[in-house]
Amino acid sequence: MKYPLLKILPLFLGGILFSQNQKDSVQFKNISDEILVNGTAYENLSDLTQNIGHRLSGSAAYEKATDWAVLKLKEAGADKVWKEDVMVPVWERGKESLQIKEPNGKWKSLRMLSLGNSEGTKGKDVEAEIVFVKNKEDFDQLPDAAVKGKIIFFNYAFNQKFISTGQAYGDAGKYRRSAASWAGKRGAKAVIIRSLSSALDDVPHTGMMRYDADDTAKIPAVAIGPKSADELQKTLKSKKVFAKLNSNCTMKGEKLSHTVIGEITGKKDQNVIVVSGHLDSWDVGEGAQDDGAGIVQSIEVLRTFKSLGLKNNHTLRVVCFANEENGVKGGNTYAENIKKNNEKHLFAIESDGGGFTPRGIALVMSPEKRTQIQSWKNLFLPYGVHNLEMQYAGTDIEPMKEFGVPLAELVPDSQRYFDIHHSDEDTFDKVNRRELLLGSVVMSQLIYMIDKNW
Amino acid sequence: MKYPLLKILPLFLGGILFSQNQKDSVQFKNISDEILVNGTAYENLSDLTQNIGHRLSGSAAYEKATDWAVLKLKEAGADKVWKEDVMVPVWERGKESLQIKEPNGKWKSLRMLSLGNSEGTKGKDVEAEIVFVKNKEDFDQLPDAAVKGKIIFFNYAFNQKFISTGQAYGDAGKYRRSAASWAGKRGAKAVIIRSLSSALDDVPHTGMMRYDADDTAKIPAVAIGPKSADELQKTLKSKKVFAKLNSNCTMKGEKLSHTVIGEITGKKDQNVIVVSGHLDSWDVGEGAQDDGAGIVQSIEVLRTFKSLGLKNNHTLRVVCFANEENGVKGGNTYAENIKKNNEKHLFAIESDGGGFTPRGIALVMSPEKRTQIQSWKNLFLPYGVHNLEMQYAGTDIEPMKEFGVPLAELVPDSQRYFDIHHSDEDTFDKVNRRELLLGSVVMSQLIYMIDKNW
Repeated sequence: MKYPLLKILPLFLGGILFSQNQKDSVQFKNISDEILVNGTAYENLSDLTQNIGHRLSGSAAYEKATDWAVLKLKEAGADKVWKEDVMVPVWERGKESLQIKEPNGKWKSLRMLSLGNSEGTKGKDVEAEIVFVKNKEDFDQLPDAAVKGKIIFFNYAFNQKFISTGQAYGDAGKYRRSAASWAGKRGAKAVIIRSLSSALDDVPHTGMMRYDADDTAKIPAVAIGPKSADELQKTLKSKKVFAKLNSNCTMKGEKLSHTVIGEITGKKDQNVIVVSGHLDSWDVGEGAQDDGAGIVQSIEVLRTFKSLGLKNNHTLRVVCFANEENGVKGGNTYAENIKKNNEKHLFAIESDGGGFTPRGIALVMSPEKRTQIQSWKNLFLPYGVHNLEMQYAGTDIEPMKEFGVPLAELVPDSQRYFDIHHSDEDTFDKVNRRELLLGSVVMSQLIYMIDKNW
Repeated sequence: MKYPLLKILPLFLGGILFSQNQKDSVQFKNISDEILVNGTAYENLSDLTQNIGHRLSGSAAYEKATDWAVLKLKEAGADKVWKEDVMVPVWERGKESLQIKEPNGKWKSLRMLSLGNSEGTKGKDVEAEIVFVKNKEDFDQLPDAAVKGKIIFFNYAFNQKFISTGQAYGDAGKYRRSAASWAGKRGAKAVIIRSLSSALDDVPHTGMMRYDADDTAKIPAVAIGPKSADELQKTLKSKKVFAKLNSNCTMKGEKLSHTVIGEITGKKDQNVIVVSGHLDSWDVGEGAQDDGAGIVQSIEVLRTFKSLGLKNNHTLRVVCFANEENGVKGGNTYAENIKKNNEKHLFAIESDGGGFTPRGIALVMSPEKRTQIQSWKNLFLPYGVHNLEMQYAGTDIEPMKEFGVPLAELVPDSQRYFDIHHSDEDTFDKVNRRELLLGSVVMSQLIYMIDKNW
């Protein structure tokens, strides 16, 4: 009896596995067909970007976007939609200009953007000599006399050698975040940084900076485009260059705002599975890829569950986070509230890398759960998802990590994102319909599996 | 002695394998760094598309492009550059218009393009009732009276359900290729087809059609955009619609043209490894993704071998094929000549799917050679190439198949390609620098491995 059992057992198990795998594969196809044919994410993104546009925390446009999200979640079939109170910082840009003095004595304007959260010149001209440094190490070696009273120009280039542009962004990030603080502590008047951009054009990119708690001088920080940065560095090799900066940007305290939430209650229990993006954007462009895409993709997941009648076991919740860009108050408040309300969260995923063709899912969770999701890889491969090895999670859901919530982030192709991210170029025309929809396909498929198996 | 040997052998073999793999991995990185930092493919594509533009076979622009290719191959470091004679068809579009009669009796113009190689109306108005069919099956069921003297409108839609848009293109291809022949045989006056497009806009796409040898009437064939096609179908449900077509397109015989070839002679032998694209394009847009991209990527491969001093064992040859779009005379002539000249070709790859992020390499060769290339997969994974399973090869190199040449095609992400392919929208601004360069990275890496191992 020994041999027959050994022969039958694998066949029997194989039969179960095959048929289960086949059923899941059929459901994956149903989800994909539904979204690619009937998906509304692209039209929703057109509406959000064309009729509301960019929507920085604290702006009237952001509040308009919260009403829009409530409406779209209801249209998608959510059985419960609400706004969650969040106190957000209010930063305003106002007018701004940066000029450099040409050899002929004339002033020439450079395309520039003040960095988000930075203080400006209060509308007064700040004029000083520009001092160029390649990186932090060079800056640290400057004598104090070369810093004090000067405008320090950090021209650290986005490293094109990384295949994932996200790595290059991470590598250069400290210059945007901290240069003003480094230079302010040593008496500089302002800093100019090279934009964190993978492009070689002259588009300036904004993004969050911060002052240290012990910074006595909050000096202005502005970004210029890669082309202007290269030209400026070249000019500085042979001669002194003076700059004149004038800006009004300033932090205006806090304001009540909202994260928007919609859900389909679970038929088995009310443990929560989150699919999310952030509803705010910078105050330039249209916030199309960052992160209108993540918002409409997440709403599409809910629409698809409803439309296909998938009847989720657990509560499927779409979270449109407030204030990712300059404070992460939406994400922090959400995590505090799930603790306060003692809600159990089974899983959370965010899409915040742009609505480009999905290539992977990054996973931050126990090794057992990671291994389980990785065992589904063959189901995902026909949809172009081949990388389940990365370990990071969306900024807004990261605060849930301390409560042990398994986290994930959709990983789209990264080549185009940082050409346009945080700039005037982040507009709807950069979004491709099928690429956007495929992101929803993959998130819906993953949530289908997790909802069924966890 | 048995156990120690068993233990040592794998260690010894592992040591060789590891160190070889490690060396290849270092070389892969060198290639990638060289191209991402110093690559000139993007600037070359800007030059080709902005200063020459589209370049249909037989046009003055195409001949200008051959001079351009000779120059660029020399600049890249080819030690031999020449033009290969090719007789190509000369098709000219001329003026064209399509109007439909509105319910109020007024004529309304539709955006349209005659299909490549089709005959026009010789500048005369051809007016007839439009008869709509969804597909070939519906057409076959039409009574003769519903075809004769009518303009048949084939509205077969690009199937959005395929994940690879190339599959959807293949699926719908017969309508562009053969509809005029089907309808002409049954006495129709002309055909209108829905453009082979993944987009939902109103851009018409051209592309090659053909008449059968036994077609007595060569009726005109034109394409309209997806939006116009949808609207027209809707209108035809409730009322008769008449169309007026006027076009001058015609085939004007043959002309001497050229495929451009450049190479670095092998240091060990002169057996040939081909990397290629096609230099011609349709007579709309700029031929940027189709296939300026493949041309500049191929030249970049040669530049990289030269620049890194890789000293190829076999002859590395870049082939810029003539006339892919409406005749494949370049590819056919090239294959005939290698037979005539008794040249041994080790391998040929083409890039003709657009300069988007590479995701795979399609392989057409013996199972042994496929398996060998597939065994290199881990070397390619860090560069985003994960699919070595597909089996097809570029149109221009396919004629070499009968001489047993192992063939391949670069497989880029396919989501955006058929939105713009063969249309006014195929312009340089649709190309992303890093995506384009990564295609060269992957082809250079593959050729490095083949040159070393075959």
